[in-house]
Amino acid sequence: MEVKVELENVRPVDIEKRSFEIITRELGERKLPKDQELIIKRCIHTSADFDYADNLCFSDGVVKKAMDALKHGANIVTDTQMARAGINKRSLKRLGGEVYCFMSDEDVAVKAKELDVTRAHVSMEKAACLEGSLIFAIGNAPTALVRLYELIEEGRIHPELVIGVPVGFVNVVQSKELIMKADTPYIVARGRKGGSNIAACIVNALLYQISNDRS
Amino acid sequence: MEVKVELENVRPVDIEKRSFEIITRELGERKLPKDQELIIKRCIHTSADFDYADNLCFSDGVVKKAMDALKHGANIVTDTQMARAGINKRSLKRLGGEVYCFMSDEDVAVKAKELDVTRAHVSMEKAACLEGSLIFAIGNAPTALVRLYELIEEGRIHPELVIGVPVGFVNVVQSKELIMKADTPYIVARGRKGGSNIAACIVNALLYQISNDRS
Repeated sequence: MEVKVELENVRPVDIEKRSFEIITRELGERKLPKDQELIIKRCIHTSADFDYADNLCFSDGVVKKAMDALKHGANIVTDTQMARAGINKRSLKRLGGEVYCFMSDEDVAVKAKELDVTRAHVSMEKAACLEGSLIFAIGNAPTALVRLYELIEEGRIHPELVIGVPVGFVNVVQSKELIMKADTPYIVARGRKGGSNIAACIVNALLYQISNDRS
Repeated sequence: MEVKVELENVRPVDIEKRSFEIITRELGERKLPKDQELIIKRCIHTSADFDYADNLCFSDGVVKKAMDALKHGANIVTDTQMARAGINKRSLKRLGGEVYCFMSDEDVAVKAKELDVTRAHVSMEKAACLEGSLIFAIGNAPTALVRLYELIEEGRIHPELVIGVPVGFVNVVQSKELIMKADTPYIVARGRKGGSNIAACIVNALLYQISNDRS
């Protein structure tokens, strides 16, 4: 028997609103902290995975702090070109910020090979030399989070925010627990899940919350 | 009580191998079809989500067909810059292929607004004008898949492969069921899950399988 596929008739401008309505409905009675709500829902929107209602961990007051940093032109550092591509660079630029990703840099590759460490590790060291205030959006490499932890502990960097959402199986869980011990504001997806898309989505959620507050 | 975080000592070159060992172990007794195995495992590797062991659907003989197309220089079309960023362009170029994404093109934005359709819809029409053989990697917009279905039915395009893995809540499930009814080879993540990362990862899995076969 041929089953007919019934498409819902939703105008392009309304698709995102409708998606968030469905997410809100499916979350049901569950109350999310007001300041974290849009971030959590956007992670679910990006992944269709309701685990993000449970696994996201926020340090005290981190959302306001991060939004303030972005409003003052904080730059973003990512550990993948994918996360870089996913961040809304137009919204960021309006606030004076830029996105950096050093993963494809030749000098990073050379140094990583020389030291037998990951390119992500070396990228974080390169980022530590940047001027101005920084937000790290780490969606892939636990080794980036581990190196960030060390650089923070050594007092060599003072991030405005570390988004710690690497995905995977080797040292991913541990690297997230480690960064939550560091003296830094954080948003972390506890456990194995995360990804470059989640890292970008959390940055975008912060940027859109700034626009919403202003409109 | 302070809990010490214990990092596993794995060399950078061994991280991916170790991840796949863990995935294989956790899949346990489960047997995956030989030709699909690396694709399924890479999707789990990319997402840390074992749902991909169940939700991926492959049309008959699609993996061999797709690998043949790539070996003959097929080009890739994505529906996001993120998916484009995630595809291993060096491996693809070695085979003679390129990645196109028309989502940020000014003419696409103008036409989408004019017609009150999504940019993804218009992007697919623009892709239909490309010469040569094409693989579509759709990780975001169900409207891209719906438009592809129509273009295939109208005989205006004949893709070598449609990777149908949009993520989300509005017409996502339906668009995937629809594309599986089209006369086209497909790899689809049934249900709500997917993403630009998954779209890129399936392309990369095919590319790496070609390199493995050759080495």
